[in-house]
Amino acid sequence: MRLTPEQQAELDAEAGRRAETRRPTVPELEAMLFRALPVLDHGFVRVIDYMGDDAAIVQAARVSYGAGTRRVSEDAGLIRYLMRHRHSTPFEMCEIKYHVKLPIFVARQWIRHRTANVNEYSARYSILDREFYIPELRHLAAQSASNRQGSGAPLAADEAERVLALLREDAARCHDHYAQMLNEGPERDPARSGLARELARMNLTLNTYTQWYWKSDLHNLFHFLALRADPHAQHEIRVYAAAIMQTVRAWVPMAFQAFEDYRLNAVTLSAQMLAVVRRMLAGEAVDQAGSGLSRREWSELTAALRRDAR
Amino acid sequence: MRLTPEQQAELDAEAGRRAETRRPTVPELEAMLFRALPVLDHGFVRVIDYMGDDAAIVQAARVSYGAGTRRVSEDAGLIRYLMRHRHSTPFEMCEIKYHVKLPIFVARQWIRHRTANVNEYSARYSILDREFYIPELRHLAAQSASNRQGSGAPLAADEAERVLALLREDAARCHDHYAQMLNEGPERDPARSGLARELARMNLTLNTYTQWYWKSDLHNLFHFLALRADPHAQHEIRVYAAAIMQTVRAWVPMAFQAFEDYRLNAVTLSAQMLAVVRRMLAGEAVDQAGSGLSRREWSELTAALRRDAR
Amino acid sequence: MRLTPEQQAELDAEAGRRAETRRPTVPELEAMLFRALPVLDHGFVRVIDYMGDDAAIVQAARVSYGAGTRRVSEDAGLIRYLMRHRHSTPFEMCEIKYHVKLPIFVARQWIRHRTANVNEYSARYSILDREFYIPELRHLAAQSASNRQGSGAPLAADEAERVLALLREDAARCHDHYAQMLNEGPERDPARSGLARELARMNLTLNTYTQWYWKSDLHNLFHFLALRADPHAQHEIRVYAAAIMQTVRAWVPMAFQAFEDYRLNAVTLSAQMLAVVRRMLAGEAVDQAGSGLSRREWSELTAALRRDAR
Amino acid sequence: MRLTPEQQAELDAEAGRRAETRRPTVPELEAMLFRALPVLDHGFVRVIDYMGDDAAIVQAARVSYGAGTRRVSEDAGLIRYLMRHRHSTPFEMCEIKYHVKLPIFVARQWIRHRTANVNEYSARYSILDREFYIPELRHLAAQSASNRQGSGAPLAADEAERVLALLREDAARCHDHYAQMLNEGPERDPARSGLARELARMNLTLNTYTQWYWKSDLHNLFHFLALRADPHAQHEIRVYAAAIMQTVRAWVPMAFQAFEDYRLNAVTLSAQMLAVVRRMLAGEAVDQAGSGLSRREWSELTAALRRDAR
Repeated sequence: MRLTPEQQAELDAEAGRRAETRRPTVPELEAMLFRALPVLDHGFVRVIDYMGDDAAIVQAARVSYGAGTRRVSEDAGLIRYLMRHRHSTPFEMCEIKYHVKLPIFVARQWIRHRTANVNEYSARYSILDREFYIPELRHLAAQSASNRQGSGAPLAADEAERVLALLREDAARCHDHYAQMLNEGPERDPARSGLARELARMNLTLNTYTQWYWKSDLHNLFHFLALRADPHAQHEIRVYAAAIMQTVRAWVPMAFQAFEDYRLNAVTLSAQMLAVVRRMLAGEAVDQAGSGLSRREWSELTAALRRDAR
Repeated sequence: MRLTPEQQAELDAEAGRRAETRRPTVPELEAMLFRALPVLDHGFVRVIDYMGDDAAIVQAARVSYGAGTRRVSEDAGLIRYLMRHRHSTPFEMCEIKYHVKLPIFVARQWIRHRTANVNEYSARYSILDREFYIPELRHLAAQSASNRQGSGAPLAADEAERVLALLREDAARCHDHYAQMLNEGPERDPARSGLARELARMNLTLNTYTQWYWKSDLHNLFHFLALRADPHAQHEIRVYAAAIMQTVRAWVPMAFQAFEDYRLNAVTLSAQMLAVVRRMLAGEAVDQAGSGLSRREWSELTAALRRDAR
Repeated sequence: MRLTPEQQAELDAEAGRRAETRRPTVPELEAMLFRALPVLDHGFVRVIDYMGDDAAIVQAARVSYGAGTRRVSEDAGLIRYLMRHRHSTPFEMCEIKYHVKLPIFVARQWIRHRTANVNEYSARYSILDREFYIPELRHLAAQSASNRQGSGAPLAADEAERVLALLREDAARCHDHYAQMLNEGPERDPARSGLARELARMNLTLNTYTQWYWKSDLHNLFHFLALRADPHAQHEIRVYAAAIMQTVRAWVPMAFQAFEDYRLNAVTLSAQMLAVVRRMLAGEAVDQAGSGLSRREWSELTAALRRDAR
Repeated sequence: MRLTPEQQAELDAEAGRRAETRRPTVPELEAMLFRALPVLDHGFVRVIDYMGDDAAIVQAARVSYGAGTRRVSEDAGLIRYLMRHRHSTPFEMCEIKYHVKLPIFVARQWIRHRTANVNEYSARYSILDREFYIPELRHLAAQSASNRQGSGAPLAADEAERVLALLREDAARCHDHYAQMLNEGPERDPARSGLARELARMNLTLNTYTQWYWKSDLHNLFHFLALRADPHAQHEIRVYAAAIMQTVRAWVPMAFQAFEDYRLNAVTLSAQMLAVVRRMLAGEAVDQAGSGLSRREWSELTAALRRDAR
C-alpha cells in the first residue's frame, strides 16, 4: 500500500476539485495532478501544485531582454537560446510542488539541494510506518572496482538472496523494537511509559520510508535533474528523477526539450579537450600520450565522441 | 500613462483568459489578477500569478507535524501557532509573482532581498522610457536630526519648489541627452553611429523608472514586508509594501492576520527590557537611570509600552 | 575513541602550524583551534578555520551606515544596535568552519539550515565506523503528554535498561550485517563479491555516527543557535549548539553578548500580548478569560513575565 | 584620488598589522592584502580577508569522498577532477572578502549574484562623493547591430567627444544640485533646512561611484567570474572580474588553473552539436544546412572549433 486511507481520501477530494482561474494553466499537467507515480517498492512522486508554463518563461525573458528578444521569432527558439547561454532567471519564474515518499537514505542525498522548500514528515511528532525499501534482486550490485562511487555487476543469486534476507530482517526487527519502545496504540502496555518519539526513531534503519512536500523553481529543478538523472547517480535516486522528468515534460515541453539538448545530453569540453578535437578535425591522429590529457580525461573525451545519442 | 499600449493589450488578453484548474484557487486574489495598483506617480504593482493559499500552509504543516497538529482544531489556530513559533517552512509552500514598476533608487533597496527571483527590464538591451519619480510636495522632508536614516519635517514651500524644479529639470535633461547619445528612432541622425545602450544608460538619474517581474515565497515576502512596511523604512518603498499587503490580505487572509499580530505589530523585548517590565509589574517605579538600559533602549521600551495598536 | 589515528595525526599537524598573517586574528579562538570539544558519547565539534572578528562587524556596518554610525561611540554599542534592529548583513561578514561528528538523526535536523556549506562523509565512497549514539540513562525520557514534540519525565530504570539494550543490540547487529554485506577488509570472503557501499549503508540505524565539515556565516549561525539552543529543541542537538556557543563566545564576545540579550533571552510579544501588558501596567488585574488571548498564548505570556533570567 | 585620507589611514594601519595564526595562510595573497588594485578611472578592488586555500578544498573533498579520493594521488589532480565533474561543495569551503569601489550601474549588474554577502555604502545615511565614471575615449562604442546586448565599433572622434562632454556635464551638474539640495557642510545656507539624504540621492546619475564590502565563497566567485569575465559581458564589469582574477590566481593557484581549463576556456556542446562533430570526425563534410543546427548554433559551433586558446 503506497498511500494511507486518509491520504487516498484527501487525494480524491483534491482530484475532484474544479475551479476557474485566470492563471496560466497546463492541461497536460492538470491531468497528472495528485496522481501518484509509483517509484521503487513503496515510494511515489505526485504533483501537488504548479505555477507558470513555457509562456511564463518567455514573458519573463522579454521583460529582461526587451526589444532584443523580438528578433527571436518564436518561443521555442528563445527558450533554447536562454538554456544554451545559461540565462537562468526566466526559468526561475516557474515553480512546482511535489509530494514524495522515499527511503531516508535517498532523502539524505536529495536534501543537499538547498534552494528548494521542504516540509518533511517529522518523527519527533509522529510515528513512522513499518515500510522499508527492499531492492529488487537485479539491482543488488557489487561494489564497482573502477569507480569508487558506483556499483558494478549484479551479485550472484545466493549472495543476493542472503543480502535481501538481512535487509528485510534487520529493518523489520528494528521497527518492531521501535514500536515496542514507543509503547503506543491499541496494544499499549500500561505498565510502561513508552520512550519519546524523538528518541525511539534512532533505532530505525536508513531504508525506512519518509515523505515530504518539496517545492522548487524550474531552474533549480533542472539542476537537480542534471545531477540526479545522470548515469553516475545512484539507481535509487535516479528513478525519482525519472518520474519527475515525466511531469516536467508534460508541464513545460519546450523548456524540457532544451534541457535535454543543452544540459542532459550535452558535453563540456575543456580547453585541452577542445585543442585535441581541433587537431583531430585537421586530420591528425591523436592518441592519449600525444594528447596532453590525463588518462581519465582522455577516456572521458573518447567516450563523448563515440557516444550514441542517448 | 502607467502602461504602454503593448502592456495594456497584453494585460487585457491575460485578464480575459479563463481556464479550469484543479489547483487551489483564491477568488479574492483572482479578482485582482493583472490589475495594476498605482504606486507613486508612475509606478504600480500587479499580481501576475500565485500558487497556494491558507489551506496549503496548513497542509504542509500537517505533513511535518503529523498527528501533533490534530490537537490544533482549526486552520487559523494552526497558522497562528506556526507564525508565533517561527516555524517558517510551511509558509514557503506559497508563492506569488508580481510585475512592478519602480524608480531605480527604490529598486536598489528592494533587490537586497536575495531570496526572491527577478527579471528586470535591461537597459543593455532596451531603451528606458522618459519617466521619472518626482515626489509630491508634502513628501519633501528635511534630513532628520535625531535619526540619521530618516527624514524629518517637510521643507518650506519655496525650498520644496526649488527642489522639485531641480529634480524635474535634471532628470529630463539627462534623459534628453541619453536619447541624443543613443541616436535611435525616427529622428535618428544618420551622420552619427549612436552610443551603445549599455553605455548611454549611465547618464540617467536614479529616479528614472524601471520595472521587473519579482517572485517570492510567502515566508520571504513577510520578511520583506516586515522590513519595508516599517515606519523606519523610506516612504518611497513603504508605499510599495502597502500595495503588496493589499494583495496578500486578499490571498491568504489567515496568514496575513497572524503576520500582523505576531510580526508587524509585535515587539521584541530584550532580556534586560523584560526584567524591567517584571519590576514594573511588581509595582516598582522604574526610571531610565535605575533600569540598567541605555537611553536609546529605554526610549524604545517606553514607546512600545505606550504605543496604541497601529 | 573519538578520532581515528589518521585524524589525530592530521589534527596534531594542524595544531602545530604557525604562520604570520595580516588578517584579523582572535587569540582566544586560536587557542581552541582544531581542539575537539566532546559532545554526546562519541561526537565532537572542532573549529577548523574562521574569518573576521567583532571589529569586522563594526567595519562593515560603518561602510553601510557611514557617518551615521559615528554617533554610536563604541563598538559594543554599535553591535548591540545592529542586533536589536536586525541589521543582519554586517554579521554575515564573519565566517566559521567546523568539523563535527554527530549521529545521523541529528544530522538530519541540522541540515535543514540551508544557508551553510557542508561536506559530509559519504557512505557511497567510504565505510562508516561501528560507532552509535547510545543515550545516557537519565536522558531516556517518556513522550511528553502536553507537548507533542518534546519529551517528558525520565523512564523508570528497568524500562530504560530494556531500551538501552535494544538500541545497543540493534545498532550493533545492523552494523555487523552491513560489514558482512560489504565483504571488504582483511576478513574478506573471496567467494563473495560484496555489496556496493551505496546499497549496504541502508541497513544502518539512524544513531550511527557520521561527520562533516560545516561552514556558516555568523548571522546564519546565530539563527541556527537561536533555534537549536532553545529549550524546545531536542537534547541531542542542543548539546551541539552548546559546544558551538563556547566557540562563538571566544570568537566574537561582543556579538555573542548581544545575541544572548536580544535573541536568546529575549521575548516577542504579539500585538494582543502587548495590549495585555499595558493593561496590567495600568494596574488592571487581567486573567486569561479577560485577556482575549488563547489559553496557549496566555500561558506563554505568563511564563515570559515570570521567567527568571536564564 | 581613489581613497579618502581616512580610508588610506585605515588601510595603512591594517597593512601594518602582523599576528600569528594557526589557520591556513597564503603568503602570495597576504602580499596583496589591503592593496587597492585600480579599476576604471576611480574604482578599485582590494582583498580585505580570506579563509582557506587549495589544501582546504582537498581536505573537504577527502572528508566527503573518503577512501575514494586516495586514488587521486596529488592535490592538483583531485581539484581538477572536482572542477570537471562540478563537485562544487569543496570549493564552497573557501571564502574571500573584497572592498570594491564601482559605478552604480555596474553595482546593479553585480548585485544580481545573490549568494554573496554585501554591505554597501548607504546614501540614506551618508553623502556620496563627487566622483563619476567617465569612459576612456576608445571604450565609447556604437550599439552593435548583430548583437543586441553588446557594443560594436568605436565612435568617431567628434561624436565621442560630444558624448564625453555630456556625460561629464550632466554628472557634475546633477551632483552639484544634489549638494545644493542637501545644504550640508561648511557652506550650508542657514535659511534652508536641506532635503533628506534619502531623497536627494535620486538626483544622481548612474555613473556615480559607490562602494561596498563584498564576500563570496570560491564556488560562487567562480560562477561570478565565468559570467563577468566572459567576452559578452560589458567592458565596465569585465575589468573588475579581471582584477579579481589576479587575486584568485594568487590565492588558490590550483583551483584557478582548473577553473580556466574547465570553465572559462571550456565549451559546452549540445547533443546536436556533438552529433555534428562526430560526423566531421568520421570524415564527412558538414555545412549548416546539413547540420540540423540553427544558423546561430552553427556559428557558435564553428567559432568554438576554430578558436585559438585564449
